[in-house]
Formats: sequence, C-alpha cells, structure tokens
Amino acid sequence: MVGGGRGAFIGAVHRIASRIDDRWELVAGALSSDPERARASAEDLNIAPDRAYSDFREMARAEAARADGIDAVSIVTPNHMHAEPAIAFLEAGIHVICDKPLAATPEQARRIAEAVNGAKARFILTHNYTGYPLIRQAREMIERGELGEIRLVQAEYAQDWLTESVEKGDNKQAAWRTNPEMAGAGALGDIGTHAFNLLSFVTGLRCESLLADLQSFGAGRQVDDNGHVLLRFGGGARGMLWASQVAPGNENGLRLRVYGTKAGIEWHQENPNVMTFAPLGEPKRIVTRGGAGLGGGAGRWTRIPPGHPEGYLEGFATIYTDAADLIGGVGDGALLPNIDSGLEGMWFIEACQRSSGAGGTWVAR
Amino acid sequence: MVGGGRGAFIGAVHRIASRIDDRWELVAGALSSDPERARASAEDLNIAPDRAYSDFREMARAEAARADGIDAVSIVTPNHMHAEPAIAFLEAGIHVICDKPLAATPEQARRIAEAVNGAKARFILTHNYTGYPLIRQAREMIERGELGEIRLVQAEYAQDWLTESVEKGDNKQAAWRTNPEMAGAGALGDIGTHAFNLLSFVTGLRCESLLADLQSFGAGRQVDDNGHVLLRFGGGARGMLWASQVAPGNENGLRLRVYGTKAGIEWHQENPNVMTFAPLGEPKRIVTRGGAGLGGGAGRWTRIPPGHPEGYLEGFATIYTDAADLIGGVGDGALLPNIDSGLEGMWFIEACQRSSGAGGTWVAR
Amino acid sequence: MVGGGRGAFIGAVHRIASRIDDRWELVAGALSSDPERARASAEDLNIAPDRAYSDFREMARAEAARADGIDAVSIVTPNHMHAEPAIAFLEAGIHVICDKPLAATPEQARRIAEAVNGAKARFILTHNYTGYPLIRQAREMIERGELGEIRLVQAEYAQDWLTESVEKGDNKQAAWRTNPEMAGAGALGDIGTHAFNLLSFVTGLRCESLLADLQSFGAGRQVDDNGHVLLRFGGGARGMLWASQVAPGNENGLRLRVYGTKAGIEWHQENPNVMTFAPLGEPKRIVTRGGAGLGGGAGRWTRIPPGHPEGYLEGFATIYTDAADLIGGVGDGALLPNIDSGLEGMWFIEACQRSSGAGGTWVAR
Amino acid sequence: MVGGGRGAFIGAVHRIASRIDDRWELVAGALSSDPERARASAEDLNIAPDRAYSDFREMARAEAARADGIDAVSIVTPNHMHAEPAIAFLEAGIHVICDKPLAATPEQARRIAEAVNGAKARFILTHNYTGYPLIRQAREMIERGELGEIRLVQAEYAQDWLTESVEKGDNKQAAWRTNPEMAGAGALGDIGTHAFNLLSFVTGLRCESLLADLQSFGAGRQVDDNGHVLLRFGGGARGMLWASQVAPGNENGLRLRVYGTKAGIEWHQENPNVMTFAPLGEPKRIVTRGGAGLGGGAGRWTRIPPGHPEGYLEGFATIYTDAADLIGGVGDGALLPNIDSGLEGMWFIEACQRSSGAGGTWVAR
Repeated sequence: MVGGGRGAFIGAVHRIASRIDDRWELVAGALSSDPERARASAEDLNIAPDRAYSDFREMARAEAARADGIDAVSIVTPNHMHAEPAIAFLEAGIHVICDKPLAATPEQARRIAEAVNGAKARFILTHNYTGYPLIRQAREMIERGELGEIRLVQAEYAQDWLTESVEKGDNKQAAWRTNPEMAGAGALGDIGTHAFNLLSFVTGLRCESLLADLQSFGAGRQVDDNGHVLLRFGGGARGMLWASQVAPGNENGLRLRVYGTKAGIEWHQENPNVMTFAPLGEPKRIVTRGGAGLGGGAGRWTRIPPGHPEGYLEGFATIYTDAADLIGGVGDGALLPNIDSGLEGMWFIEACQRSSGAGGTWVAR
Repeated sequence: MVGGGRGAFIGAVHRIASRIDDRWELVAGALSSDPERARASAEDLNIAPDRAYSDFREMARAEAARADGIDAVSIVTPNHMHAEPAIAFLEAGIHVICDKPLAATPEQARRIAEAVNGAKARFILTHNYTGYPLIRQAREMIERGELGEIRLVQAEYAQDWLTESVEKGDNKQAAWRTNPEMAGAGALGDIGTHAFNLLSFVTGLRCESLLADLQSFGAGRQVDDNGHVLLRFGGGARGMLWASQVAPGNENGLRLRVYGTKAGIEWHQENPNVMTFAPLGEPKRIVTRGGAGLGGGAGRWTRIPPGHPEGYLEGFATIYTDAADLIGGVGDGALLPNIDSGLEGMWFIEACQRSSGAGGTWVAR
Repeated sequence: MVGGGRGAFIGAVHRIASRIDDRWELVAGALSSDPERARASAEDLNIAPDRAYSDFREMARAEAARADGIDAVSIVTPNHMHAEPAIAFLEAGIHVICDKPLAATPEQARRIAEAVNGAKARFILTHNYTGYPLIRQAREMIERGELGEIRLVQAEYAQDWLTESVEKGDNKQAAWRTNPEMAGAGALGDIGTHAFNLLSFVTGLRCESLLADLQSFGAGRQVDDNGHVLLRFGGGARGMLWASQVAPGNENGLRLRVYGTKAGIEWHQENPNVMTFAPLGEPKRIVTRGGAGLGGGAGRWTRIPPGHPEGYLEGFATIYTDAADLIGGVGDGALLPNIDSGLEGMWFIEACQRSSGAGGTWVAR
Repeated sequence: MVGGGRGAFIGAVHRIASRIDDRWELVAGALSSDPERARASAEDLNIAPDRAYSDFREMARAEAARADGIDAVSIVTPNHMHAEPAIAFLEAGIHVICDKPLAATPEQARRIAEAVNGAKARFILTHNYTGYPLIRQAREMIERGELGEIRLVQAEYAQDWLTESVEKGDNKQAAWRTNPEMAGAGALGDIGTHAFNLLSFVTGLRCESLLADLQSFGAGRQVDDNGHVLLRFGGGARGMLWASQVAPGNENGLRLRVYGTKAGIEWHQENPNVMTFAPLGEPKRIVTRGGAGLGGGAGRWTRIPPGHPEGYLEGFATIYTDAADLIGGVGDGALLPNIDSGLEGMWFIEACQRSSGAGGTWVAR
C-alpha cells in the first residue's frame, strides 16, 4: 500500500475490502512520506520493519527485487499523488490498484495511461460502486435487453458534509478535497466521477457530449461543490447527472435511474440490497440481492443469502477479489474498472469544467 | 363549468374538488360544444335544462343576466380552448377558475391576460398541487428562513403512460395531449408547468434563465415527451427540472427537493402526507401533515387529523375553497395561482422550446 | 344526521364522505341534544330551520311523515348513543348508517340487532377502511386463491395520542373515548374493532377463539389503551392483533399482513395507495391503486388515475356511495359492513375483555 | 474452528466476520468429523496439515499443548453438536465462541453452563445482531432514559424459505434445521431466539412470563415453523414476538419496536443503517448509523462514515472484535452475548414449547 497511514481515511477501507474474501495480505507499505509516520503506521498494521518504506520508489524497486515481493500495490494517496507511484510500480512490473479519480490533472492522467500501455502489469481503478451485486445485475439486465432500448439515464451523488466551509477548520479530509492542486476538482472529481462511471458501467452507453453548470457555494471555496450536468449519449439516449456536497440531509446519496422502452430500474446506494424493476404495464418489482426470481443475477457477487444486507465494504471487496482473479489468471476482469474508466472520468471532469467555464455550453468529445 | 362532458377526465376532478368543502354547487354548464352531448352530460349532473348550454358565450351572457347567475365558471377544456371562454366570462363579470396550462399559445395567453387586467372578475388557475398542505407548509418554512439561503431547487414530474405511442390508438386523453394545436406542448405543458409552478410557489424564487434539452421519444410523436431543464434563479440559486411521460414505473412522480444553507426538504406527491426536513447537523425529520411538532403549519389546510391520509382531491379542493374565500371577500387569495402563475408557465414552455430548438442554449427573461 | 354538532369530529368526516360522489345531500339533523347548539349547528350546515331537530325521536317521526323525508340517517354520536337513535329510525322505516363500534354494551348491541331484524330498512356500519380500494382488491385476490391457503393474518392499529392521560385536560375526544360508560372499551373498541373487521373482511376467515392481554398504561385510565391479541381461525389459520393508543410515533398505524401457502400481502393505511404482493419464489410486487397489472381490481372503487393519491375521505366516501347503491336498488351491498360486522366487533371486544380479565385465557365462540 | 467444512453455511460467515477487523487468523480446525472432508476443507482454507483435525477433542488437546496454540475456537456445528466441543475446549482452557442457540436440549445447555462456570476460559455466544451499531445505540438511548419508562416491546423475525417443505428435497440447511434431534426447535430456536435476545439486549428488561401459540404448517414438518408469543416483563412492560419461516415475501425480516412513556423507536435488520426515533409530540427522526445528531452513539461500533452502508457481516465482525478485546484484556465484554444469553434463549424455547403444548397457557419463570 502507498498512502493510508495514520489519520487517513480511504486506506483503511481498502485494507478491510482486501481482507474480506481472504485473497490478499498486506505485507509491505509506503504509508507516508514522513519516515516516522510511515514506520509507526506500518507497525500499527503488523508490516515487518524491512518492508515499511517511506519512499514509494524504493518500495517499488525493493519489492520487485524480492522473491516474495508483493503481487500488487494499492495506491490510496490524494489524487495528485496517484501518477508518480502508479508509474513507478507499473514500470517495476507490479500490478496497480489505484483509488479514483485517476489523477488531479489531465497531464498526470495521460502519463499514467502511457505507463499502463507500456506495462505488462495490470491497472485497476477502484470505482467500487460497480462491485455492488445489484449494479452488476442491472448491467446484465440491460445487456440482455430487459429494459428495451435505453432512453433516459440519471445518476446523482449528493452529500452534505461541505455545506459549510469546514475546510477552514481542522477537517483534513475537507482540506485536501477542496484544494485545487491536490484534488483537481471538487464534488465533480470526488463523487461526480463515481456517478458518471456508474451510469456508463450499467448502461454500456457512451456519453458523446455534455453541458455542466458548476457552483462553489461554500464561502471562499476554490473548487466546485455542486454541479448539474446534462448528458447526450450515442444512440440518442439522454441523461442528467447531479453531484453535490452541499445538500443537507444527504450522506452518500448515490442514486441511479435508467428508463428504456420496455422497463425502468431505480437503485439507491444507501440501501443497496434492493432495486426496483418496473416493466411497462406491470407492477413494479422489488428485486433483492440474490433474492427470489429476478434477484438471481446478483447472487454471483455476494457472500450471504438475501435478507442479510451486504454493504459498501463487501462491494469494495468484490473489486479486490476480481482483481485477484484477474491477476491470478482465473478471471478476465471484464467488470473491473481500468485505465479506460479512469480516462473517461478525467474527460468527464475536464469537459464539465470547460462547459461551465464557458457559461454552460455543450462540449462534445 | 365549460367542458367536462361525458368522456372527459379533468372535469370530474374539478367537480369533486369543488364539492368537498361544500362551498360550491354546480348549477350550469356548457359541457360540450356538441348540443346533444352537452344536454346529456348536463342531465347526468343534474343541471337544470335551462342552464345546460352548448355555447359558452351564450352561457356567459345568460348567466350574467340572471339574478341567481353563477358566481364563477370552471374552464376544463383542452388548452387551446381556454382563451375564448375565459375572455367571455371575464368580460361578463363572472369569476374564472381555469385549468392549466394557461393556453396553447403565447398569443392566447396574452389575450387572456389582457382580459384579466381589464376585468373586475377574478382569474384563478388550478395549479392544484399548491393546495397540498405540506407544500404550503414548506413555503412557510422557507419564508421564515428555516432552510437558510436557498441554493438548490429540484423538481421533477415523471409519468410512463406515453412510453408507447398510445395516441395512435383510441386513447382520447393521449390524442389531444400530444396534438400540438390543442396542447401547445407535450410533457412540458401538461406536467412540466406543474413542476415549475411548484418550485416557484414553494421557494418564492424567480427563474432568470434556463436551458432545456427536449425530446420526442415516442414514434411519430409531434410534441415533447421528455425534457431535462437547468435553471438559474435570482440570488444565485440553481436548479434542475425533469418532466417525462416515458419513464416506466412512474405514475405521477412529482417530487420536490430544496436545499439551503441550513436545511433541506424533500416531498413526493404520491405519498403527500409526509415530507422530510433535514436541518444541517441534525437527524432528518419526518414531518407529517398536521402532525407533531413541525407538522403544525399544514394543519390549517387540512380536514382530518394526521395519520389519515388526504390526497389529490383534497389538495385540489383547497384551491376551490380558497377561491370561494377570495370571491366571498374573506380571504386575500395570497396562495392562489393566478394569471401571473399562468404567464410564468407560458414563459417556461416557450423558453424551453426556444432553448431546445437552438440545440440547448441559455434563454434569459 | 344525528350527532355531529359543533365541536364534534367524526360528523364532519361523514358529511364530506357523503358529498364526494354527489349521492347524498344533508337536509335534516338532530345535531345535538342541546336545542341551542342543535339549532346553531344546523344553521352552520345550511339545514332548514324546520328540519333542525334537537330530539332524534322527533326527527325520526317527522321525517318519516314527510313526502320528501330523508332516505337515510347518519348516526355519529358516541358509542353509548348509537342504540336509541338507530332503533328509532329503523322502526320509522328509515335506513341507518351508523358509526362504529356498534354500541357501548352487548345489551345495546343486541337491541339494535333485534331492530334490524324486524325492520325493512337497511343498517350499515361505517367500518370505513373496507372502502379503501386496495383493501377490496386484496379481498378479491384472496377469494380467487392468489395467496393459496391462508395461514397467517396479522393486523395492527397503533396510535400515540393517549400516551399521556390527556383526558384529564380539556381534550373532549379523549374524555368520552376513555369513559367506560360512553365508549364501552378503549383502544379495543375505538380502533381494535377496525383492525378485527379489516382482517375478517379481507380474508373471509372466521375467528373461532382468541386470547387477549389488555393494559391501561395511562395513569388513572379506566379503559384499555393497549392490547395484544392472539387469534385462531376456522381452517387452522392463526393471527395476531395489536391495538394501541400509547405507541409514540404512530398516528393511525393501521397495518394488515396476510400470508398464505402461495403468496403474502402487506398494506399500510397511512400510505394506502400501495400494497405489496409477494408470490413465493418471485420478486415482491408493488401494487398501486388502479395501477399497472395487478392494480386493476382496485380501479373499480376509485375516482382518479393511479399515482394521484386517494385517501381516507375517499375510502369513506365509497361506503356512502355503496350505501346509496344498495338503498337505490342498484347494488347488492355485498361489500358493505352491516349488523353482522357490528356484532362481530362486539364479540371481539367482549371476548378480549373476558380473556384478559381472566388473566389471559383462550375464549372461544 | 469446529465445523464449517465444505458445504456448510454459517462457518463461512464466521470466518469473514473474524477477518474484517484483522484481529483473528484461522490457523487450526476440526472442520468435519469425516477425515477426508476435514482435510480437504482445511486445505481450502490454508490451514496447515498438522493443524487440520478430524476430532475436536484431539484438537482441543493438541492446541492446548502448543506454545502457539489457538486463542479461541469458533464452534459452528448444528445445535446438537455445540455441547461436546464447547465443554472440551473450555476444559482445555481455550476460549469458546459458539453459534446460537446454545444447544438442542436443556440438558446439553446445562452441561455447557457447568463447564463455563468451572472454566477460566470465556464463553461467547454469537447473537450477532447485537453487533449492529444502531442496536447498540438503541440500548444506550433506553439506558439513558430517552424513551422514558418502557411499556411495549415488539420483536419479529420472519422468513419464507420454509413455506414449502423443502426439507424433503436436497436442501441440507432445511434438513438439519427441521430435524428435532439436531435443531431442538424450529423457527423458535433458529430465529426466535435472536428476536428474544435482541429485545432483551436493547431494553434490559427481563421476561417474567410468556404464552406461545406454535404451529408446524409445513406438511410433515416435525418442528415449529411459526410462533406467536405474548410476553410480560418485570416492571409491567408487555410485548409480542413473532417468529416465522412460512411468511412469503420475508427474507430476514428481523424488526424491533420499543415504545416508552417519552418516545418510540423502530429498526429493521434488512436496512440496518437507519432507525426511527419518535419523541412524543415531536416529528419522528431518521437516525442513521453514525450520522448527524442522534446518530453519534452508533459511530463507536462502525468502520466507515454514515451513508455508506455496513451490513450483516460488519455487525457480526463486531462480536469477534469485542471478543478479541475481552480475551486480550482491553475490553470488559459488557455488550457480548454470553452463557447467560444462551440460557435465556433456552428458557425461551422451552417455555414456548411448554406453553404451546398446553394449548397456549402462561408460563412463568
């Protein structure tokens, strides 16, 4: 693991997710660039002292050289610190599992993509919501045509934790996530890319053009904290995306709605074990994760019977398990977010910023 | 009543709504322009033969001349048939209660507005959703500043009954509502104006500019059946509006969300007796119609205690009762939709059509 | 109308309900036994002075004698005042629509039943929840065998307005409803009989024995305010009934659940336009009032399309409309609660009181 | 681990739960009494061959003798196979984490209790639902008096997987769980004890007497598959408990409702990250796991921020983590289910069977 030392947030999530299915063991880390914090954090996590690095380049070199070197590295640093470690490990032939969004700038993203293209090692981006069983089932249902031709796609991801400018206090998460240099974008990058990835993953549609109206409502805030986006997809489908961190009453309100000529579906991340499926002219169904009838599909990516909820960590774990399968040669990784997903997210951010910067105009590919 | 004869839909709704609080009695009508159908429909409704007209102009004249003439007329004809009767009755000094949208064309709307300005009689537009008690309470809460400064306003009205082009069959409602001459617009006019009216009513904000992306998904359909609209309000608030008649699984999915600096609210028409109120940093409240604590406000526009649901007809009835109060001089009609609401709706339709026609550009006042 | 004068509650509900479908007109009343209050109340309701009575016996006599006498009387007095007027009007040959429960004592109930048996006039009891469209649809579905053989029936009706002993203050509703002489029973009679009636109506099952554990939690309260009841039905089905007026957070939480060998259904009065239907081995359906697919059945007892909620008053109105049909000879009244429903409710109350009084033992028919 | 070999169900759940917080490692097991299956199962789980036992007594002996012997054993066998291994490991001084219910017979339970009393090792029973953060918060809220004096306690656990007699086919889970010798009881033991434990845990009330009406609806079924139970608690609170495996549409419908003089709460296991809290006279609150305001308490037993759902496995993991703390001497285990919880469950089963066997009579302690 690179990043994720004491006081970090997403690193702990990656560690739990990687453990759940017993496919990964954390054995080495450059958990902080501060040597003392790196050492102490490694000790917390039972990493042997000789594999507790403070420099990710040294870690890449040393681990590549070991007979028992790591199979893959998790990169869980802030956005602007994804590119350098990703490139270092890819060049060392070590598989990379990287947090999203891909990078803080298009330039960083481009350099990662070059490294991926030139590498034999795999690159996996943790758009973890694609690991939710019902999301994968929704994708299958759409692929099989159960919704008919898709006309409308709507995704939203709403939070409220930045309603006030808490980054001015001692909220470290808020501080880096609202820092343009470290984050690259605000709500758009942090959560908007998740929503954009999710709708692409589920529908298989490609967004051809978009129009964004972004705001920074928080006093003195330097990045967007709210954005309304209109979307036009290849084939004629239309969509809407809303990302906000200033909507009181929303914790992690990631919602997806897709409507086709034959049926519609709706899903909400905060209660992810149910999805509604509404075939035109029939009563709406409540589809449960692995449950009766239509719930079957989701059962392949689940650990426990329906009615016992799986949550965020299990969905995240599925990404790690699929990564283990892919790397282990027993899976094709077809469902795994990869460099292309990452570049799509970067296009989304950049196009939204360009559109909104121009007063809200359509930006095509 | 003008319109609302046999086979009509909204006329019956107006009749029930007007009866609920026992403030109105239906005594005269030009229920159809077909004399035989007008006569038979009047008979169905126990209207005396001498007050069963087939020509609304004759009705306006005759009723104005009677000592016991009607107090007000309900106009429940298709959109393109609002202007002529409205003008006739206003000129005859008879109050008008008119279904929405105001008219099928801006020209018709302008002529109604002129008649209203020149008349002593009142003009009331039945944007009936403003009669829901919790909608009125939400308006009060926002007025009192309980949400802080409003930042985000989102309204949507989704249906699925036009997912297929049922207007090609014998669905009379679908036929006129998708006929550009009779309806003027599709989803935009039929339900989009309701959503637009609702967000204006609740927030008191004025939309300064908008951008719309409209579609006609139904094969051969001549009016819009779906529209995504971005909104910019005076004072800096932003919004989003979605109107659709092609979203499978939605019956009358009118939803409203408003987020301010201090709190957010959410309301859904299909379960209108509850609203959530989320003060920042506190648990979300489930506010019930007339219920404990915050539910008090709504109680003024309700007939039965909380927990016994009131519905669409009661909300509609409140419009009729407020109209009776206004006309009877015991109310100021401050909450009643009027000619201004109607002109706002017409601006909304026309601006959306202009925006979308230009490929999706911003249209300001 | 008998009862329902100024300050009363349920009278106003009956009046609105009777108006909604335009089948009844209020033309006479003994609205109070206090002559002045009777007169003033009648004036409020536009009842002609010569038909504003202060004595229900006089009203029965006078109206029976008029050529244009009333078709039916609504009795909306407290429970202990049902028997005398009901008998007087039945004997006068005037149809009776009576609020529930049937009476405050078994003796009163018996006398009403005798009068009904000896009368040509009809007797209808307003167990109004049976007028909810989805409740009637549920009954049909069970009758048609769509749930298979019924095994489990659960009903509950929970409120919180008597959590504290508000009857000691100036709450008039609480005062008579907790007065053993006037009410006969507490939660059991006021709301428990509704729940009992509902489960009988929907399933068609006959309760053969029951066991009740009743409490009076409110300080100094003389009637039950909470009861848990176990039920055994003919054919082997079992059930549970809970009635409470001391459950904070419940306004009118009337819920019904029925499980058979093939499917289960659930319904909640506070959002009465939806019901879930869960066929074994298939995803649960959300059935809407008059909506797609399974929603059809309910459409026969509804006024507006699905998605526009109907509520308590409309369900109540259906009882009045059915009564008009029955009396008018155009309906068979098969769905209308009648004297048998009333006697069932009295058996339920009496059996529960006997069971609980004996420490909680089984009481059979 | 004892039990949990290939084809087992709950063993895998325990293994994931124990891994989530990285406090346990699976190093030894007697996964099956069949030597070949024990060996193969151990290999699946990366247990070293010399610690893969086929006899739990040998395992207890050998592990107790090793310097690096196990800290604790998880017993995940069918109910009738809890006592022997529990006693063996307790006598060997090894801590025991045992699945519920405690045993298949009172005699077995008594023998385990004796062993616990005589041992220095700890005994923990995995009533895992007590690990849900909001359940622990509810307990705290009640302890602090936020609900006032408790009057009503209702718990239910409904499933539908035994609606048909699937135990006659090749459903192994159904086979042993409906076998009186192996399970001791049906729904009552399998899920009813969870509900009973939960209501005791949350309220701190002691059930003084109960009355049960049990059924075996499944054709040829030898254990109960449905039970309605009335409860009387010390201090005067009353309750109701329903356990069923024949209620179509229910997956794992474990629900809890508690009403006091000041407030009520409701919680549903299938969406465990929210709870409602209704203070009398105020609007109902939606409390989220670790969320704003009242959600704080739950945050101590949670891994990720509110809005990202935790589920069944995380709640189960908290039991394992608390066990690690208790055994490691850094926690007092005050929230951990133990032998007393197990004996309570056995009393519940036995009292219900006795009550129902006598036709439904009250059974006191």
